[in-house]
Amino acid sequence: MGTIKVAINGFGTIGKRVADAVDAQDDMEVVGVTKTGPSFGCELAIKKGFPLYCTFDDKERISLFEKKGYGCSGGLSDLLSIADVVGAENLEKYRSAGVKYIFQGGEKHNLTGLSYTSSANHMENLNAEGTRVVSCNTTGLSRTLVPLFEHCGSLKVECTMVRRAADPGDSGKGPINAIKTVLKVPSHHGPDVMTVKPEIEINSLAVAVPTTIMHVHCIIADLPKGHGLSTESIIEMWSNTPRVIIMNGADDRIPTTAEVMEMARDIGRKWGDLHEIFVWEDGVKLVGDRLYYFQAIHQESDVIPENVDCIRALMGVEEDWRKSAEKTDSAISTYYST
Amino acid sequence: MGTIKVAINGFGTIGKRVADAVDAQDDMEVVGVTKTGPSFGCELAIKKGFPLYCTFDDKERISLFEKKGYGCSGGLSDLLSIADVVGAENLEKYRSAGVKYIFQGGEKHNLTGLSYTSSANHMENLNAEGTRVVSCNTTGLSRTLVPLFEHCGSLKVECTMVRRAADPGDSGKGPINAIKTVLKVPSHHGPDVMTVKPEIEINSLAVAVPTTIMHVHCIIADLPKGHGLSTESIIEMWSNTPRVIIMNGADDRIPTTAEVMEMARDIGRKWGDLHEIFVWEDGVKLVGDRLYYFQAIHQESDVIPENVDCIRALMGVEEDWRKSAEKTDSAISTYYST
Amino acid sequence: MGTIKVAINGFGTIGKRVADAVDAQDDMEVVGVTKTGPSFGCELAIKKGFPLYCTFDDKERISLFEKKGYGCSGGLSDLLSIADVVGAENLEKYRSAGVKYIFQGGEKHNLTGLSYTSSANHMENLNAEGTRVVSCNTTGLSRTLVPLFEHCGSLKVECTMVRRAADPGDSGKGPINAIKTVLKVPSHHGPDVMTVKPEIEINSLAVAVPTTIMHVHCIIADLPKGHGLSTESIIEMWSNTPRVIIMNGADDRIPTTAEVMEMARDIGRKWGDLHEIFVWEDGVKLVGDRLYYFQAIHQESDVIPENVDCIRALMGVEEDWRKSAEKTDSAISTYYST
Amino acid sequence: MGTIKVAINGFGTIGKRVADAVDAQDDMEVVGVTKTGPSFGCELAIKKGFPLYCTFDDKERISLFEKKGYGCSGGLSDLLSIADVVGAENLEKYRSAGVKYIFQGGEKHNLTGLSYTSSANHMENLNAEGTRVVSCNTTGLSRTLVPLFEHCGSLKVECTMVRRAADPGDSGKGPINAIKTVLKVPSHHGPDVMTVKPEIEINSLAVAVPTTIMHVHCIIADLPKGHGLSTESIIEMWSNTPRVIIMNGADDRIPTTAEVMEMARDIGRKWGDLHEIFVWEDGVKLVGDRLYYFQAIHQESDVIPENVDCIRALMGVEEDWRKSAEKTDSAISTYYST
Repeated sequence: MGTIKVAINGFGTIGKRVADAVDAQDDMEVVGVTKTGPSFGCELAIKKGFPLYCTFDDKERISLFEKKGYGCSGGLSDLLSIADVVGAENLEKYRSAGVKYIFQGGEKHNLTGLSYTSSANHMENLNAEGTRVVSCNTTGLSRTLVPLFEHCGSLKVECTMVRRAADPGDSGKGPINAIKTVLKVPSHHGPDVMTVKPEIEINSLAVAVPTTIMHVHCIIADLPKGHGLSTESIIEMWSNTPRVIIMNGADDRIPTTAEVMEMARDIGRKWGDLHEIFVWEDGVKLVGDRLYYFQAIHQESDVIPENVDCIRALMGVEEDWRKSAEKTDSAISTYYST
Repeated sequence: MGTIKVAINGFGTIGKRVADAVDAQDDMEVVGVTKTGPSFGCELAIKKGFPLYCTFDDKERISLFEKKGYGCSGGLSDLLSIADVVGAENLEKYRSAGVKYIFQGGEKHNLTGLSYTSSANHMENLNAEGTRVVSCNTTGLSRTLVPLFEHCGSLKVECTMVRRAADPGDSGKGPINAIKTVLKVPSHHGPDVMTVKPEIEINSLAVAVPTTIMHVHCIIADLPKGHGLSTESIIEMWSNTPRVIIMNGADDRIPTTAEVMEMARDIGRKWGDLHEIFVWEDGVKLVGDRLYYFQAIHQESDVIPENVDCIRALMGVEEDWRKSAEKTDSAISTYYST
Repeated sequence: MGTIKVAINGFGTIGKRVADAVDAQDDMEVVGVTKTGPSFGCELAIKKGFPLYCTFDDKERISLFEKKGYGCSGGLSDLLSIADVVGAENLEKYRSAGVKYIFQGGEKHNLTGLSYTSSANHMENLNAEGTRVVSCNTTGLSRTLVPLFEHCGSLKVECTMVRRAADPGDSGKGPINAIKTVLKVPSHHGPDVMTVKPEIEINSLAVAVPTTIMHVHCIIADLPKGHGLSTESIIEMWSNTPRVIIMNGADDRIPTTAEVMEMARDIGRKWGDLHEIFVWEDGVKLVGDRLYYFQAIHQESDVIPENVDCIRALMGVEEDWRKSAEKTDSAISTYYST
Repeated sequence: MGTIKVAINGFGTIGKRVADAVDAQDDMEVVGVTKTGPSFGCELAIKKGFPLYCTFDDKERISLFEKKGYGCSGGLSDLLSIADVVGAENLEKYRSAGVKYIFQGGEKHNLTGLSYTSSANHMENLNAEGTRVVSCNTTGLSRTLVPLFEHCGSLKVECTMVRRAADPGDSGKGPINAIKTVLKVPSHHGPDVMTVKPEIEINSLAVAVPTTIMHVHCIIADLPKGHGLSTESIIEMWSNTPRVIIMNGADDRIPTTAEVMEMARDIGRKWGDLHEIFVWEDGVKLVGDRLYYFQAIHQESDVIPENVDCIRALMGVEEDWRKSAEKTDSAISTYYST
């Protein structure tokens, strides 16, 4: 099979990151990205050499790009006619044109009837027509809960999500000095894990707090009798899990999400992204059969490598999620090797 | 019995509030407050007519007050010689002088071997030589959990504490834009409830967030089989519990702690205090036998009425905590009737 | 003349405070306050004993109050028929009904053609039909600049306004972690001083920052040659100016607006208000003929005593603004004497 | 002349960035970086292929690196023996060893008697033994003021610095919800410009606010009579000035520093850095001879290209600062071309 041709419909927060990650792979290429009109994002696309398309097929809108000096290769239909897979960001008006499609976690599971996250259900998505890569939070929960579940055979989880209230580039939202409770109880976050791993019983509560960097999950998981795990063996398990980073808050001087993000900026991926889930080693504790731990989620980027794996699942080119993950992560790492 | 003579050793964040609350009662009076030296707090004491003493017996230090124009009635020993009860704030060097003593939640239970919160164990503290009024968080948890426990006979609780990182008047502390995980797991907050109600099984996790107003508790309580409660009857129970306020986040437009504090400022107590625990009605939900709810705690003030009740317990003048609470709260309410 | 009858049309952030301040005076009384419908604010009005009216004359709307259990004395017309003066908050649809009117600083000067602040132009407002009490920022600038101008005879001022981005009870607004520049240059804030004291030449720049408490003004004032002032004599001048508080940031440990607000809460006015402008003594410096200083403004409350003085101006009962200010402030101080 | 050999003594916030920028140039190379002991920063150095040295010559300390698995090439003396220039971060104990030295803006001008910023005084630093690259704020002020000064021949400036209170990776510092006034008036920031361009008359006031991203300068500059400039021609001048970016807050939807930083992350330099000074086009306004404008400064990175130019100045290899700047910036841009 030749190179997989990927279209990105919506070159925004997630789309621009997925495009970069696809560009880093040797078995796929970005055949085009769409924008609704000429704006700063077009410069990014052109600098990267991604062909630029208009989100609409309307000729007048397409001509606006040229007027602003951005070469535009056509409308969405033109792009779809040359693509194998299309990744779409929160876009309900998308309609299939014989290309496979990937929606993002902002959409509901019902839209596709199928959801995806690498460690949970790669095989179930093999050769499917389309799917939904779950949200940053669901992805993060799956990363640490799925290996636990696979060891234990059952799992009952409660998670309190302490969410950042706004993205770093979003200055309009508050609160400046308050804690907001999400009054839909339980919140939708935890149960969404069941769209990719229905056997995990999970609920959640959520609050939003005045920070722009990372969500924090405070997790309580009840393991079944006879699980045979200890605090140390659980830490060891996660150390061997792809896309989970474990560091020691005290020894490594990483007391808060600020220091986690600073460490990520040192790693050197674009936008200071951290694709991995961050677990504080000294915050993991098994008390009887009840496990307590904290993890931090980089909202804008943890789902990016999942999107690449998902393309391979839909195209049926790699059955083993761990092999796909290794290929994806290694390519991304080389790409940002400056 | 005559009026109970109360000394306040330490006229700081808690001390100044306890003094006001004692002053509001008709069965007790403030016979003196201490300061380590002349400062802005002295003006407060003098304006209120509270006799001012020096925290030390050192004559030179006492004379410093006079030099700054503040009348000083003597040292700590002088104050203790005329007091029945002394309330002390985080003060380890305190030593009894034949007066009953109350420590605050910053101290450990071990210091006194006895702790107090009105709804949990008023009777156990009756006529005791001294005790510790538990912290703002423990007080808050007791307010809603004790009535649940008394109904159910047993209770198993997990609480995620989302803590404000600094007091409103404290500009030195951060973080400005991050979430800090408390890596001692479980945290000390939940288990402290067992110093006043050992039958409640409880653990907790804690994070600190960049806000200066109110802690939020995200609580999961497992009720025993056959509890006979519903979401509605639990709300009804708390509506009838002293010092618990239940309002509807959606209908009353109180989505965050900012609006809770604004409502408190409208009530008109000094410092904009809210002695009550605030529970969001639409955030309470019983799912099977598992109860979820959120509550907000005004760190600086929820323990204030508890201190007044505690004085009555130590002096043995009122056996029924509900009667004491009603007397205390009614006097405070009248005091701030402007 | 009898007691001045004051109506408050709009019992919101400013209205509820003006009502309290009027209630504290012995030469005026609150004859009614309006609300658009039954809500938490009604409880406040009733608790204070202020007759409650509906903002509209619509009978159906009026009946809604009764349904919620709030006694309602009628519509706006009914209220106006018994009032001498009406204070209105940001209300463009107000129309005179033979009562004198006071608009707030959210309105433009053009609406009334006349503006008011106690120290600048009390006499010009004497017996006028209506006026506008200038905004919190303009009031604050007038407090310190007018006495300087009166001494010097001319003044050229630049002010950089560092504004809080949201009110303490407003959780919707951001930014959480950014500085917003107000790109209308110069901003409207400084020049508004010229509506009450046209002889002061003044411009301003403004930025909004992620705090909910107090604006800070960074002021540069060029004094004319031969002004005869020193840093010390300017501090002395402001010490003798009504509604200006001067404290030392280093000695009094008030490095930021957080500590200023905490000091205000200690004073004990409702809502933790600070009617006075706060000037840092150690931040005042005259370099040649150029004066630098910082001042902090409590946005919600500094205009409150100005509204009371303004009522006396419109009713023509007190010609001397200093006498009115003394009467107003002394009454407020007694009112909140708890 | 061969490749310039650059040592970086102190591989922290500034050091790690200077090392990257030097590495990007074809006329210089990083011969070593120092760390005080083995820590996360060592991994960064090793990943980049920078030889690692110990800040001290102490053999025991040096051996600690090996124990943690980091190859260490020796102590500071060893590094200095092979270097032409050494860049040091806030390090007072540095002593010359026959190599040229560059201190950073945290040091005082007195330490070196000479300071540097590219546009102001490149030539004066030619072949000097050592110098100080001025702070982020002074660099930022010089970028926009020096071209204005060169056009006008004289300039009188007032700047109000609205400073971020903590770095993004620093969670310890506050304030969370307050504005801090810098009570040393005038502040040291503005006058420091005179260490590189003594002819510019400048003073400043400063406040710190609860944000971790970018300082904002609110600038008022009085131009001399007959300057012949207009708002438009000043914008044009800055558009042609190296390392100044002008964008329109309204049209480009960049209302705050949050959106400026997001734009910088899109550009794709490591750590999301923005070496350029950001000026809001619609915030520039000439009123008579008084110019108002706002600019935003990325504290951690604006001095980085200046350090590279400074190396060329000290080594005497390029007399024209504009040519050096072009070479520096072009190399950095290629380096981060992912």
